[in-house]
Amino acid sequence: MTRTIVASATREVVIGFDQPFCVIGERINPTGRKKLAAEMIEGNFDTVIKDALEQVAAGATMLDVNAGVTAVNPNETEPPLLVRTLEIVQNLVDVPLSIDSSVTAAIEAALKVAKGRPLVNSVTGEEEKLEAILPLCKKYDVPVVAISNDETGISMDPDVRFAVARKIVERAADHGIKSHDIVVDPLVMPIGALGSAGLQVFALLRRLREELKVNTTCGLSNISFGLPHRHGINAGFIPMVIGAGMTSAIMNPCRPQEMEAVRAANVLNGTDQNCSNWIMTYRDYKPAEGGAAATMAAPAASAGRRGGRAARAGAAARMD
Amino acid sequence: MTRTIVASATREVVIGFDQPFCVIGERINPTGRKKLAAEMIEGNFDTVIKDALEQVAAGATMLDVNAGVTAVNPNETEPPLLVRTLEIVQNLVDVPLSIDSSVTAAIEAALKVAKGRPLVNSVTGEEEKLEAILPLCKKYDVPVVAISNDETGISMDPDVRFAVARKIVERAADHGIKSHDIVVDPLVMPIGALGSAGLQVFALLRRLREELKVNTTCGLSNISFGLPHRHGINAGFIPMVIGAGMTSAIMNPCRPQEMEAVRAANVLNGTDQNCSNWIMTYRDYKPAEGGAAATMAAPAASAGRRGGRAARAGAAARMD
Repeated sequence: MTRTIVASATREVVIGFDQPFCVIGERINPTGRKKLAAEMIEGNFDTVIKDALEQVAAGATMLDVNAGVTAVNPNETEPPLLVRTLEIVQNLVDVPLSIDSSVTAAIEAALKVAKGRPLVNSVTGEEEKLEAILPLCKKYDVPVVAISNDETGISMDPDVRFAVARKIVERAADHGIKSHDIVVDPLVMPIGALGSAGLQVFALLRRLREELKVNTTCGLSNISFGLPHRHGINAGFIPMVIGAGMTSAIMNPCRPQEMEAVRAANVLNGTDQNCSNWIMTYRDYKPAEGGAAATMAAPAASAGRRGGRAARAGAAARMD
Repeated sequence: MTRTIVASATREVVIGFDQPFCVIGERINPTGRKKLAAEMIEGNFDTVIKDALEQVAAGATMLDVNAGVTAVNPNETEPPLLVRTLEIVQNLVDVPLSIDSSVTAAIEAALKVAKGRPLVNSVTGEEEKLEAILPLCKKYDVPVVAISNDETGISMDPDVRFAVARKIVERAADHGIKSHDIVVDPLVMPIGALGSAGLQVFALLRRLREELKVNTTCGLSNISFGLPHRHGINAGFIPMVIGAGMTSAIMNPCRPQEMEAVRAANVLNGTDQNCSNWIMTYRDYKPAEGGAAATMAAPAASAGRRGGRAARAGAAARMD
C-alpha cells in the first residue's frame, strides 16, 4: 500500500489509498492576490496568519506555503520571504506544510529551516527542474509533487501526461527516491474549455494508481474555471476524483460545500471509520436553506410490503 | 453502446453510458407516507398531482409511480389504484414513467393502459418473480429494473449480487429480452451500518457496466440511512456512482443539493454538452449562505510566474 509520509514538528500525516483524503490548504499564496502580495512585501503577515488559522480550523490536513510575490529577481527576493513565511506558519499551526515555489533556491532555503517532513511543491518533467529539485528531495529526504508537464508544455493527450509522470518517477528512482515519495499531479483542465477534462483525469488517476502506484494531487478548482457556481462543480468533482483514486488536492478548505464533499467521499470510500468524523461534524447540522423538508420514505415502515423498492429499503433497515 | 429506451406518449428518453444521468423521481409512493396512502385510498390524488408536477419542475427525467397503499389483499386492490394513479400522472406530465409494484397483476394492469414505453419496476432473481414479470416485459416490449436479490435474500457478498444480476439477464434473454432492456439495481446498503457499502457498489457498478454491459439504477438515499445530514452523503454519493458507471437512480429530485450533484456530475462526465444545462441552471446562482467570498487565485493573473501551481493555472486560462 502506497504511503507518503509528511510531518510537522509534532504531527505525522499519511497520504495513501486507505487514508482520508488529504486536503492541502491553498490560501497562503500571493499569486493573483495583490493585497496579500503587497502585505508580504511590506513584512506584514497578518493575512498569512489569519489564513493559516482559518484553514486549519476548517479542516485542512496540510497547508501549502507560497511566497512568490514578484516576478522581479525572485532568485534573490523569494528565498528569505519563503523562509520567513514558512517559519511563521510552522510556529503557528501543527499541520505538515507544503513548500510551494518555482524558485529552486527558495525551496532549498525553506527545506533548511522546515521542521518535520514537508512536501516539496513541485518538480515537473523538465530536465532543468528534474536535476535541480530531485537532488534536494533526496538530500532532505522529503516527498515531492510531480507535475506532468515538460519542456513541451502541458499535453492535451492524457497518454503523454502519463508518460511524463512515469518519466519523473523513474528519474526520481535514479536519484534514490522511492515512488511512494512522489505525489503526481495529472493536471486538471477547465471543463468549460475542454469537455473531456473530467473523463481524462479520471482515467489518468486510475492508471497512476494501478500502474505507477503513486499518490496523486491536483489544483482542484481549475476544473470549474470560467463556469458559474464554481463551488457546485468543485463539490461534484471531489467525490469523482476520490472515487477514481486521487488521494490529495490543493484546494480551499474554507469552502463548506467543498469540505462537505470531501467528508462525504471519505465516508463513502470507507476511510472515515464508523462515519465518526461525519457524525461529529454534522450531528447538529441544520440546513441553511429553508425549503420544506420532503418526506423521505422510511425504510423501517415498509415491512408490510413484499417487493420492489420497499423490500430493499426494509433490508437496509434490518442492517441498521 | 447500451441504450435503454423509455418513452411517454410524446417524449423518448435514453438511459445510457453516454447520456445525462436519468433521475427517476421517487415521490409518488405511499410506502412510509401514511397521509399519502390515506388520500389515495380515499380517491384523493391532490398530493400525487402536486408531487408529479414538482418533480418534473425540479428536473426529474422520469417518474416512478407506486400505489402500494396496503398489504391487505393487494392483488385485488392495487391493480385498479395503480391504473388510476398512472393515468392521472401520464395525462399530467410528459416524462416517461416507471411502473412500481410488487404485485404482478398491478403491473400488468398498468402496462395495459400505459402510453409510450414505461419501465417496469421490478423483477428480482426469485424464480416466481422471474417467471411472472419477464413474460410481461416481453409481451409489452418494455424494459425492467432487475434487483439483485433472490429467494435467499440480499447477499452481503457483492459477487453473489453480481451473479444474481447475471442470472436475471440470462433468464431475460431466454424470454427474448435483450440486455439493453435490463436496468440492474446492485442494491445499496446503508454506509452507517456497513462501512464497505460504498466500495462494494462502486466495484459492482464497474463490473455490471464492463462485463454485463447493462444500465444500472438504485434507491439512492438508502446509502445515508441513519446518518445525520443525509443530503450531504447523498450528494457525495451521486458523483461517485456516476463516476463508477451508474446511469440512473430512483431519488428525490426536489432536493436541490442532490440535483446539483447530478448536474455537476453530468458536466464532469461529459454528458452535459458545452456545460449548457449547468450554465442555464446556475448562471444567476447566488449562494444561500452569506459567508464572505474567499479570494480565488485568478488563473489569468499568473502570467508573471514560471512554475508550480501558477503555471498550471495559467495554462488552464489559456485554454479558455
